[in-house]
Amino acid sequence: MEIETERVGFFVNGWQWFKGIPLNAGAAVVGFAEQARKIASDDPRKLIHSLKVGLALSLVSLFYYFQPLYSSFGVSAMWAVMTVVVVFEFSVGATLGKGVNRGLATLAAGALGLGAHHLATVTGKTWEPILIGLFVFVQAVASTFIRFFPRVKARYDYGVLIFILTFCLVSISGLRTDEIVDFAQKRFSTIVIGATTCVVISILVYPVWAGEDLHNLVAKNMDKLGNFLEAFGDECFTRPEGVRPALVGLQPILDSKSSEETLANFARWEPGHGKFMYRHPWKQYLKIASLTRHCAYRVEPLNAYLQSQTQNLQAPQEIQEIISRMSTESGKALKELAWTVQTMTRPDSHESNLRIASKNLHSLLKSDFWEEQTDISLVIPVAAVASLLSDIVSCVEAIAEAIDELSSLAHFKQPDDKDKASSHFSVVVDDHDQVKQESKSSAVEILVV
Amino acid sequence: MEIETERVGFFVNGWQWFKGIPLNAGAAVVGFAEQARKIASDDPRKLIHSLKVGLALSLVSLFYYFQPLYSSFGVSAMWAVMTVVVVFEFSVGATLGKGVNRGLATLAAGALGLGAHHLATVTGKTWEPILIGLFVFVQAVASTFIRFFPRVKARYDYGVLIFILTFCLVSISGLRTDEIVDFAQKRFSTIVIGATTCVVISILVYPVWAGEDLHNLVAKNMDKLGNFLEAFGDECFTRPEGVRPALVGLQPILDSKSSEETLANFARWEPGHGKFMYRHPWKQYLKIASLTRHCAYRVEPLNAYLQSQTQNLQAPQEIQEIISRMSTESGKALKELAWTVQTMTRPDSHESNLRIASKNLHSLLKSDFWEEQTDISLVIPVAAVASLLSDIVSCVEAIAEAIDELSSLAHFKQPDDKDKASSHFSVVVDDHDQVKQESKSSAVEILVV
Repeated sequence: MEIETERVGFFVNGWQWFKGIPLNAGAAVVGFAEQARKIASDDPRKLIHSLKVGLALSLVSLFYYFQPLYSSFGVSAMWAVMTVVVVFEFSVGATLGKGVNRGLATLAAGALGLGAHHLATVTGKTWEPILIGLFVFVQAVASTFIRFFPRVKARYDYGVLIFILTFCLVSISGLRTDEIVDFAQKRFSTIVIGATTCVVISILVYPVWAGEDLHNLVAKNMDKLGNFLEAFGDECFTRPEGVRPALVGLQPILDSKSSEETLANFARWEPGHGKFMYRHPWKQYLKIASLTRHCAYRVEPLNAYLQSQTQNLQAPQEIQEIISRMSTESGKALKELAWTVQTMTRPDSHESNLRIASKNLHSLLKSDFWEEQTDISLVIPVAAVASLLSDIVSCVEAIAEAIDELSSLAHFKQPDDKDKASSHFSVVVDDHDQVKQESKSSAVEILVV
Repeated sequence: MEIETERVGFFVNGWQWFKGIPLNAGAAVVGFAEQARKIASDDPRKLIHSLKVGLALSLVSLFYYFQPLYSSFGVSAMWAVMTVVVVFEFSVGATLGKGVNRGLATLAAGALGLGAHHLATVTGKTWEPILIGLFVFVQAVASTFIRFFPRVKARYDYGVLIFILTFCLVSISGLRTDEIVDFAQKRFSTIVIGATTCVVISILVYPVWAGEDLHNLVAKNMDKLGNFLEAFGDECFTRPEGVRPALVGLQPILDSKSSEETLANFARWEPGHGKFMYRHPWKQYLKIASLTRHCAYRVEPLNAYLQSQTQNLQAPQEIQEIISRMSTESGKALKELAWTVQTMTRPDSHESNLRIASKNLHSLLKSDFWEEQTDISLVIPVAAVASLLSDIVSCVEAIAEAIDELSSLAHFKQPDDKDKASSHFSVVVDDHDQVKQESKSSAVEILVV
């Protein structure tokens, strides 16, 4: 009887599962479509990039369609297709970097491979395969090892990979065919055609500049930190008990290092565009980003503090004001610095308020003001926050210095009062989320200051 | 006269520069050799990896050397060489992941490409190129877009790339040759041969396991933090004035996120090896690593504090002892947790000391102890440090919990007293630098506790 029930149960379950297939499949398709829609609406450039890749592939496949083109390259046209698939990256810098790496590495390795082949044939039929084998082995070992060099890894990793590949293909093919000059030459020219197609389309059709992305990311992160500090200044003493402010979004700043470094590496390949000249000081952006991250390490404990405490900080009115003002002013200074970077306009005395607030805090920290306090247990959290804020001010000052360097390295324009008033309202930190609005409102606030 | 001097100066400078060539070239070669020696001695596995790649390439190039092999594959043997160059990665997981991606994607795209070709030929000579062009475009757009899905990007990015590539090659080639089934089949089998060669060599010859690297990295980072906290506990009140302790090495912990995630992605491809079974809970390592990083965010201000202050903290003896003990105990707890992970032995009551110290601190923070202090300006930095340390203790407790989860997920062995005493001395955090020694000495210290 038990077995019977189990068997019935099995069938029932099986049937349920079977009936579920279309539902599950439907749910999967809906989930998939939903995710695709979200990605495309968050960053329409991703959809455009996909279309660009399709376009480039269609273009190079014309080599197969038209007899005159096909007769000059034959099956080698395949290399052009391959090149487009592997070289076409999201940003212009990445595409250009990969294209140049692939082109130059093919040229160098092709020439060396031909040389190796020539050297090997000179030594006669018996030694030829042995020498070629030796060349291939030694070259592969040396090149693979060179890929571990940090500077090579950052900029030329793909080039060395293609170098190994082409050298092996050319020199080994030499064992089997005498047309290896033709082989090497066709491989090189089809690769150049493929890479050029990618680079041209990636620059001409809705270009995505890694440099601009880096520029916006650095400004956006400073702006976010600034927003947090402003909100902290407002809420640390006065928010309603138990209400946790929606101060999120610090984690991406803390984790931004690798994406910033990648963007900077790509940006260095890019030609001048828009407001950025060729050889724009991208390294300085990394310095600013690193300082911003260090500032975020100090801000994170404040965030954790706000999230975990159920009680507000308590302090005499005067101390409250100094600390709140300190946080607000740091936030404003950061947001103004973000605006400086974003609009590439030389800053004018943005720190003055911060300096005053900072002086107040330092005198507060050194005053015998708190001795009046009898309940020291309430003083300790305030002291901790004050100490962190004092560190944060130093960080903001360091960021301001780095941005000052940037402004002279990159020849930021002088602020023109009329110009400034109107441009304030058009600041858009282009990160495809709600920060757009935040940034606009922050710019308005800066004007009010 | 001036022009004359200038010209002479030019020649002199030119000659200096010319004379400098051999010197500069010599210096470059020496610098290069020095860097190579450093990389190889820091991590000999990198040198071994290079030799393994050379070996794999030599093996697959045998297809060109021996007539019977060459006659069955012909020029397609080239795909095997290409596969080895692009698939052979440093760790087993990365190689396996790329190999499987490449193999399966080639199979799927080859089949679909043949289907597309068949469909196109059925419609007749006029429509064939148009249909193929359409298929290629639509497929390229869709696949490129799918690469932006975060989950696809993390694990199957390379597979989708190869899918686009193979589909285009197979379907476009169909326009020019009727032997496309043969083409697809040869491409698939040579790719399988190349990928298998890579995987077999990468597993059999000195394997580098990404999982093991992740395991060691997570343990090492906790150990480093622990060492810092121990040192901080010793030095925050007592170091000689003006001497800055050499407490460095926190930066790599703060920046470790991306490398840990990459390693975890690779590790998931790896079969069981050594003490790790297949489907070892690698995700839990990421959780522990993330908590460790959050702990490091709290420790970083302590570090900055130690580096910047020239004065020691000052506090009454009793408070000094509580704070020092707090830091030392947190450090010891972290190092014992690192040891737990490293040796995969279930922890036994490592937190008890920490709990006591933590309770002391909390009672200290809430006591009216400090009211006796008249100079509040000295109290503030101490209060800030105490508050950070209290956060750090919460972090350590969270890490301990996560490691507890890990120990049941990964079936850590029960500690055996005799076993433990002997294994303590054999803890080696294998990160190829001086940490080896630090770790050994820390294990000894844990024994003493």
